[in-house]
Amino acid sequence: MSTAGILVIGNEILSGKVVDTNSPYLCRELRSLGVVVERIVTIPDVVEVIADHVKTMSQTYDYVLTSGGIGPTHDDLTIDAVAAAFGRPLEESASIAERIRRATGKTPGRSELKMAQIPAGALLIDSGDLWFPLVVVENVYVFPGIPELLYKKFESVRERFRGVPFVLKRVYVKPMESEIVEQLNGLLQEFPKLLLGSYPRIHEKSFRVMLTLESRDAEYVQRALDSLLARLPTDAVYKVE
Amino acid sequence: MSTAGILVIGNEILSGKVVDTNSPYLCRELRSLGVVVERIVTIPDVVEVIADHVKTMSQTYDYVLTSGGIGPTHDDLTIDAVAAAFGRPLEESASIAERIRRATGKTPGRSELKMAQIPAGALLIDSGDLWFPLVVVENVYVFPGIPELLYKKFESVRERFRGVPFVLKRVYVKPMESEIVEQLNGLLQEFPKLLLGSYPRIHEKSFRVMLTLESRDAEYVQRALDSLLARLPTDAVYKVE
Repeated sequence: MSTAGILVIGNEILSGKVVDTNSPYLCRELRSLGVVVERIVTIPDVVEVIADHVKTMSQTYDYVLTSGGIGPTHDDLTIDAVAAAFGRPLEESASIAERIRRATGKTPGRSELKMAQIPAGALLIDSGDLWFPLVVVENVYVFPGIPELLYKKFESVRERFRGVPFVLKRVYVKPMESEIVEQLNGLLQEFPKLLLGSYPRIHEKSFRVMLTLESRDAEYVQRALDSLLARLPTDAVYKVE
Repeated sequence: MSTAGILVIGNEILSGKVVDTNSPYLCRELRSLGVVVERIVTIPDVVEVIADHVKTMSQTYDYVLTSGGIGPTHDDLTIDAVAAAFGRPLEESASIAERIRRATGKTPGRSELKMAQIPAGALLIDSGDLWFPLVVVENVYVFPGIPELLYKKFESVRERFRGVPFVLKRVYVKPMESEIVEQLNGLLQEFPKLLLGSYPRIHEKSFRVMLTLESRDAEYVQRALDSLLARLPTDAVYKVE
């Protein structure tokens, strides 16, 4: 079973100027690949803070995916921080400098060359038609903060993360959560390995709670689903997905 | 200057089943009140993990706001964890038990009484028409995960967080970020205390970068804005907000 930590880097998220849509995307995609996301941490653009988190998360989880803080401006510190986290010097990538030259049609200036700096020994992975490659250092994948670019880059490496996927069933029920607690507890006693979620919804007309039943064992989930449906009153279920 | 940490509790977020809209809301609201959010951490429904984070964040930031994990089901562990974090026993709140009695019109059962358990000495704050009060232990505010309820509860305590607000100016510019790096660096040399953000947008037609200029000193922001506009070519600016 693989685990992952997601590190979201950027004052713009913490100060409420930009909504982070990258970590919800990565959570969905990683889950569908069978990876368990254990932590999401959002931190400011401070090189020591980024480096500390990269180091700790790299030691704690199988994969670390960072989002944001790569680019040419003063607050783009992620590459420096990843280098510091692993005690590696920064070096200019001739390959990236050449890509910049081709993309812009001119000799790179100082701000462009900042983007050609990578931690020594980093792996560079090309992503479709993007001129800037994905930078990977050990188990740390350095993604951009711009969602459209992050999606493209993730697509180009998604198969690296694939494991045994989860099987998920959703049951939408009409009673309030407090009215079905006993049934849920009984279900968990019978199926202790079931990943059971119970999520009340306020503004839905047709149901009051979404229940989720999950496991990597499809047959176990099916048996648990049958047991749950038998425990609930027949008119309690709005739909099963 | 007050600081805050936001602790988002729930497997449903990490597994991509539910998108966290609470932390973006809290970030925006706290920023508008002058509070600096230093960290957002999203963690699973594990009592020791929740307790560890509550304890550490409580010692690190002026305010901690938790979201999720309160309710009657097996995965609602936040109250237990907050009690553990502060070494306080759980006790049944006669006041909450009475509210449950009034709300449901009957004697509370075991699952309802679970919701009447609070850490000893917790502060209870009523929120409008909600029957369940906001639970506050020291500097930790325990919010529900359901967004509509979180918003209502935050409204009832928002004035507790008010400090000196930030003044924000947004400048939308047409050049690419890499073309204005020198101007931004020059601006920061002249206004070293300016909080300057630069956020490229891919799918906008009218501009390529949103710049944000921020400070608690309105006059400082205005001078920095004037300086920035003087540094940029006249046709580079799409609009200023």
